[in-house]
Amino acid sequence: MSDPIIYASAEDCEAAFYDAFERADIEAMMALWADDEEVVCVHPNGQRLTGFGQVRAGWLAIFSSGQHYTVRIAHRLRWQSGLLAVHNVFETLQVSGGGQEGVAAAVTTNVFSRGARGWRLVAHHAAPCNEAVEMEQDLPRILH
Amino acid sequence: MSDPIIYASAEDCEAAFYDAFERADIEAMMALWADDEEVVCVHPNGQRLTGFGQVRAGWLAIFSSGQHYTVRIAHRLRWQSGLLAVHNVFETLQVSGGGQEGVAAAVTTNVFSRGARGWRLVAHHAAPCNEAVEMEQDLPRILH
Repeated sequence: MSDPIIYASAEDCEAAFYDAFERADIEAMMALWADDEEVVCVHPNGQRLTGFGQVRAGWLAIFSSGQHYTVRIAHRLRWQSGLLAVHNVFETLQVSGGGQEGVAAAVTTNVFSRGARGWRLVAHHAAPCNEAVEMEQDLPRILH
Repeated sequence: MSDPIIYASAEDCEAAFYDAFERADIEAMMALWADDEEVVCVHPNGQRLTGFGQVRAGWLAIFSSGQHYTVRIAHRLRWQSGLLAVHNVFETLQVSGGGQEGVAAAVTTNVFSRGARGWRLVAHHAAPCNEAVEMEQDLPRILH
């Protein structure tokens, strides 16, 4: 693997996260997480994955499913102080492949920390929400 | 209303949050939120409430339901830097009254910020999870 990318902001790291998600790129996805045992990932099924190994296994399962996701982000709220940043966003996920077609919606909290290697993701907490229709109507594509 | 309590730590604010939740005390609950338009509350139904007014209305609806909640917290992970702290916890909620009896489980991200009035809650993101049984077995009651 080449040298890890250094993200200059939490926003850059978040954009890379959704880009890796859409491309189902496990190496790119895991390169933007902090490499420690304190990372947390909660997918919309509600299971909490902790530590780099569990988080990686979770994404690998998603990326191996044959499903392709296109993710739009909207209504981002953010808090930042020192070495920590928190974003709360709506996600609209268009799913295709793997026998599934459709649109899902989630409300998600992403937490980033800044270290020697720039901003990295330490927590991703996605939960189902029922606001897909509203989101589809007023969603600007603010990432990518 | 008397002078607001100043919470010296995010942990103190979180303990007060679950205490107000259990007592269904709307004034105590809202006194520990930051008083601004950037606050976010996501209950397990997935609806995102933003701003002090919506967040208050959401809690008032819960507290007016006639249901009583006992909440146990476990497996807390935390990140903190400067004026911001993030906790991720499991909640086990024992529900009684209002025609409901039972146990529900949630995985929750709580975000706190520190201002002139100490630590206050700025985001509460609770989502259903399926780990109630496991939690009931190994749960120390770490709050209260």
